[in-house]
Amino acid sequence: MNRTQLIEQIHAKKSFLCVGLDPDLAKIPKHLLALEDPIFEFNKAIIDATKEYAVAYKPNLAFFECLGIEGWKSFQKTIEYIPKECLVIADAKRGDIGNTSLYYAKTFFETYNCDALTIAPYMGSDSVEPFLTHSNKWAVVLALTSNKGANDFQFLSSEDQVPLFESVVKKCLTWGTSEQLMFVVGATRSQDIAKIRKLAPEHFFLVPGVGAQGGSLDEVVKYGMNKDCGLLVNSSRGIIYADSSEDFAVGAKKEASKIQSAMELHLRRFN
Amino acid sequence: MNRTQLIEQIHAKKSFLCVGLDPDLAKIPKHLLALEDPIFEFNKAIIDATKEYAVAYKPNLAFFECLGIEGWKSFQKTIEYIPKECLVIADAKRGDIGNTSLYYAKTFFETYNCDALTIAPYMGSDSVEPFLTHSNKWAVVLALTSNKGANDFQFLSSEDQVPLFESVVKKCLTWGTSEQLMFVVGATRSQDIAKIRKLAPEHFFLVPGVGAQGGSLDEVVKYGMNKDCGLLVNSSRGIIYADSSEDFAVGAKKEASKIQSAMELHLRRFN
Repeated sequence: MNRTQLIEQIHAKKSFLCVGLDPDLAKIPKHLLALEDPIFEFNKAIIDATKEYAVAYKPNLAFFECLGIEGWKSFQKTIEYIPKECLVIADAKRGDIGNTSLYYAKTFFETYNCDALTIAPYMGSDSVEPFLTHSNKWAVVLALTSNKGANDFQFLSSEDQVPLFESVVKKCLTWGTSEQLMFVVGATRSQDIAKIRKLAPEHFFLVPGVGAQGGSLDEVVKYGMNKDCGLLVNSSRGIIYADSSEDFAVGAKKEASKIQSAMELHLRRFN
Repeated sequence: MNRTQLIEQIHAKKSFLCVGLDPDLAKIPKHLLALEDPIFEFNKAIIDATKEYAVAYKPNLAFFECLGIEGWKSFQKTIEYIPKECLVIADAKRGDIGNTSLYYAKTFFETYNCDALTIAPYMGSDSVEPFLTHSNKWAVVLALTSNKGANDFQFLSSEDQVPLFESVVKKCLTWGTSEQLMFVVGATRSQDIAKIRKLAPEHFFLVPGVGAQGGSLDEVVKYGMNKDCGLLVNSSRGIIYADSSEDFAVGAKKEASKIQSAMELHLRRFN
């Protein structure tokens, strides 16, 4: 999916919601455990319930990988089930020397045909560039994350008083365009969203941390939205575990709908 | 495998060689492609040929993942085939928010029962700590890598003139002991190996970059060896693709034996 198609979807659905799929056998409703593939059944119900409101889905690979080969089968079925008009972001935080990153790109962009992949930037240029060569595919590079540990390294200032996350964004802008590259920018640090928006006015940001981690949609929009929206705001646990009963999908739908309504207002106000 | 057992193996085999398994369908000898599982057959032959000389094996997940579910089957067969006295390092460069890292730890330490896993530190404490809670398992954190892109961020100086890779090592030392934590330290930067050894006198270093990437074993030993050896020096392509004929395993054995001989001299000189 290219940038124009993504923006069209945002306008069509009046939403910039990304639903994070973190299917955890310990958390999904108990009645699903009797089925052959509980993880896929859970995801399927969540996708059916939220697809009206979501422009992107972000399966988190850890929750599939930990189940071994069966987990990868569930992952494959899940991404095949996601409606074609939605962006599929494999949240896998890959990144290695160039020769190895090439094979990670092949894994997610060819073997599994995902649209986008999250990338850890620590190893620099040759760890990121192999993800920029597939047309209509996206590298989503960690800039500023929403977790507590973000404070350990991402704010370290380099010689010219620029924090590491800004150096990452600046370097990445020399490697790829806003048609190839997005940034992960945590919702929990709104002032810093503004800094990154200034550096990268055109790029889409994938914004985790709204909901369970305490970030606010209003703040994210205030500091991060651009003329094309430029935001994909993710909610994982806040939607998929909104209700733990057999009616979990109803709870997920209600939560997704609520976020979409707020997003619609923001989009209207901005355009 | 714990630290004492690892050191015992190093003395028993007079070697600190780690063989990197990067099995690439485009590079393995053509006659293997007719077999049911060429990747596993290749690894099996390499393991048989080198196990006399190697104390560790490091399968690189990208080369398995890119083949989809079949690749994960080959991975599982490969790690089960590695002799029990060898350390199995899953080279997967994982790391995410705490709740997700928990599941990556589960994947590699429980589902696949590997001894160690490489970790990207960009997301800080909660992305690393879940890998430190399994007894006799190791988090191998990227400190200074051997690739060109290492120059992009790892040398950025923070306010107190300390480069990022040193800040990473210092922080990690507050999170885990030399029984839980190793560091990736590229062979191509020998002066910096000395810096990290000074910061972390007891920790094992996993050292890539000898051979294909141009690093020298003598330099690595000079700057990195400690009283317990403290080094696992990896060679991937230099060993596994030493010979591309049907006799590839003979070529791999010869190369591994050559490195082990050099290592034996270093160990003798040091003790």
